[in-house]
Amino acid sequence: MSQTEITIKHLFLNKLDYANAKLEFKAWVVANRGNKKIRFIEINDGSSVQNLQVALKGDNFDFEILSQVHLGAAIRVQGNITLTPNAPQPLELVANEFELLRDTDLDYPIQKQVINLETLREIPHVRHRTNLLRCVMLIRSTLALQVHQYFAKNNFLYFNAPIITSNDGEGAGETFEVRDSNSKNPFFGADKKATLGVTGQLHAESYAIGFKKVYTFAPTFRAEHSNTKKHAAEFWMIEPEVAFYDLNDIINLADDFLKTVIKNTIEIHPKEFKFLVDNIDSELLNNLNKFINTKLAILDYRDALKELQKVKEIFEDQNIEFGLDFATEHEKYLASNVAKGPVAIINFPKEFKAFYMHQNEDNDTVASFDLLVPGIGELIGGSQREVNYDKLLHRANEVGISQEELQWYLDLRRFGDSGSSGFGVGFERLVMFVTGVDNIRDVIPYPRTSGNIKM
Amino acid sequence: MSQTEITIKHLFLNKLDYANAKLEFKAWVVANRGNKKIRFIEINDGSSVQNLQVALKGDNFDFEILSQVHLGAAIRVQGNITLTPNAPQPLELVANEFELLRDTDLDYPIQKQVINLETLREIPHVRHRTNLLRCVMLIRSTLALQVHQYFAKNNFLYFNAPIITSNDGEGAGETFEVRDSNSKNPFFGADKKATLGVTGQLHAESYAIGFKKVYTFAPTFRAEHSNTKKHAAEFWMIEPEVAFYDLNDIINLADDFLKTVIKNTIEIHPKEFKFLVDNIDSELLNNLNKFINTKLAILDYRDALKELQKVKEIFEDQNIEFGLDFATEHEKYLASNVAKGPVAIINFPKEFKAFYMHQNEDNDTVASFDLLVPGIGELIGGSQREVNYDKLLHRANEVGISQEELQWYLDLRRFGDSGSSGFGVGFERLVMFVTGVDNIRDVIPYPRTSGNIKM
Repeated sequence: MSQTEITIKHLFLNKLDYANAKLEFKAWVVANRGNKKIRFIEINDGSSVQNLQVALKGDNFDFEILSQVHLGAAIRVQGNITLTPNAPQPLELVANEFELLRDTDLDYPIQKQVINLETLREIPHVRHRTNLLRCVMLIRSTLALQVHQYFAKNNFLYFNAPIITSNDGEGAGETFEVRDSNSKNPFFGADKKATLGVTGQLHAESYAIGFKKVYTFAPTFRAEHSNTKKHAAEFWMIEPEVAFYDLNDIINLADDFLKTVIKNTIEIHPKEFKFLVDNIDSELLNNLNKFINTKLAILDYRDALKELQKVKEIFEDQNIEFGLDFATEHEKYLASNVAKGPVAIINFPKEFKAFYMHQNEDNDTVASFDLLVPGIGELIGGSQREVNYDKLLHRANEVGISQEELQWYLDLRRFGDSGSSGFGVGFERLVMFVTGVDNIRDVIPYPRTSGNIKM
Repeated sequence: MSQTEITIKHLFLNKLDYANAKLEFKAWVVANRGNKKIRFIEINDGSSVQNLQVALKGDNFDFEILSQVHLGAAIRVQGNITLTPNAPQPLELVANEFELLRDTDLDYPIQKQVINLETLREIPHVRHRTNLLRCVMLIRSTLALQVHQYFAKNNFLYFNAPIITSNDGEGAGETFEVRDSNSKNPFFGADKKATLGVTGQLHAESYAIGFKKVYTFAPTFRAEHSNTKKHAAEFWMIEPEVAFYDLNDIINLADDFLKTVIKNTIEIHPKEFKFLVDNIDSELLNNLNKFINTKLAILDYRDALKELQKVKEIFEDQNIEFGLDFATEHEKYLASNVAKGPVAIINFPKEFKAFYMHQNEDNDTVASFDLLVPGIGELIGGSQREVNYDKLLHRANEVGISQEELQWYLDLRRFGDSGSSGFGVGFERLVMFVTGVDNIRDVIPYPRTSGNIKM
């Protein structure tokens, strides 16, 4: 069975165990060079960015045929592992058997030359067979697993919020509507507008009361028309929610969560991070390690304003006053120049924050936080939730959310809810931060953005 | 931080370590009895179906107030653990401090009397605070983690297929259409119909070529009008896809996968399974253990037909002939009476199977399988994929799928695809099988079905 299969990643990690071992691999060709007497075919099996060099020599092989094997072809090879301490690669497979399982046609797009990322976005069904996308997707997969393991270790319940909802969670309005393709009748009932959820938080709050610590990890949707590097119409979001936690507790959780999943992911992918450092951002690992080892700073919104006002003239957007949200340039300045590391800005004005956030005693601000990181800006946003039924209802009314639709959520406050806090982290933004890749279209397999729904 | 928090589950599992320890809990009241001198308040923190009994006595407490604390109230207690080997429960907390954090209003629906499942479906925001739903959701969460861990251990990449798609994966047609709520212009482009995916398989195949072993675990949508216990409009699906695997390999994977995740989940939840055995199905654990320990039988569709025809008269649906799919009653008979355990039916007629399945040499059947289990029927469906470009195109044309939309998928066969196999398992159906709960509405937090979109 599959458990005993040896991957190329495993082989390189345990090379001394496999000296002279007879092994078989099924994988894809990523390089093919040589002459009429010897051929070196590099193969990749998707376990790592690392390739295995296969040396083919002797009478067993037809070198005319071998020289015609194209990049991307699926092959089976069997042979003996030979350690090569004096060669650039630490080992190779000296082949006894070679089988071409399926070649590629000549229009296979992934060839030797480097293809730019824009062009690769046109071919999402094959672009993961480049080194860069291979690294990104391997790291993405590991990060996802680390997220689940982090929360499991910390006694969280994995909660699946509904995707199709009749609630407009944040009152943001940028939603997709869902209809039965084959019927004019409303699928979910005559008076129900069904949309794709923009957050699982409200539903997660209901489960935090009873399960104490819950998290979602699911696709989220915004009918986001702005065409930026950071926004997609479909993305995955992680939203923990913890009963009895206040703002300070949840900031600590966010900090510990980020540091833990990033640290573990780096440990699992030395080859992939080396590739990213060599090809995308030479400072990537230094910056991530600095992030992991730097205590999170906390800065009140009002103090952050003062810092920004001091250097107002350096910004394009010079609207810096109480009541206004920060632009990305402000966020980056606060992290890179003021905190010189990760920083949680807390206590934002209530005007531009969601209705459910805990109202501070000053009556102007809410117990919210944005976690900013150098180079990226906002990575996480979260808050302590308002637990006072009347205050919550008042604020919902103020922002124009119908009480009838929200009654179930309001009722939580009457049913043993003594407060909870939570945050949301866009999974793709986390992958961007960890890989150094600066466009969301390159960290999700099949990106969906305004005007774009390839395949 | 959260790591050092002691849950009630942890306390009971390690009770000897905590004899006489001073501990604090924040949790919810599930029982409150006593008199004017002593009160026993049972609390639950969501870590387990197991409650902790808190004994309150002495001058510290106002017994008038304590007697008024309602079920569902959030409280904080601090005290010392006392082992009680002669009592029904092995330990209790003798309280020094008690704080009522938030009581429940009198209309809180979860009270002492058992509420039937239909009624609970009307209140999905609080029903998880009953013992049964608490068990189901704890097991659901653990099963999800076990799924991720199983695939990670076996070198699978976690792959996120797009949810919004312009491909109608199986040509099934029961899709939801997606539109921008606030704009009449098509969000994804003038000529693009965007629907919610019914499967991630086609996209997963593209990643299997290159990563070899991939799996999805994501929400899936069907505009399913039939109102049965097994169908929902929104459900989670797990879809592994493995390059180089044939039908036999993928059946072995399905069998090992199911047995492993179920075995591990049972080990983690002794209290929850005891509750289910006592309250839902006394044979549940016996049946699951039998399943884990029974070798999967394999039965050809034609042989299965013969077995059914032998006892034709016992079925309501007596249409049993080549070319027809089995009804649930047939599936249950094959598993319970013919195989007397789990059975994979293989090589179904191509007529009622998807276009992408590998066409067998007999020209009538495809290399597909349905994994049936006693009591439930179909739990998993899968197949070896057709790798021959011409055959695949021919079949797609036969069933009326446009070549233009499918070209990217067809092209995989020209780009180093030497074959792959995969299967799909509905996660909720798996949770039903594992918990013995027989309605899909009771194993997903906020179920969506035709005419129903609560909260």
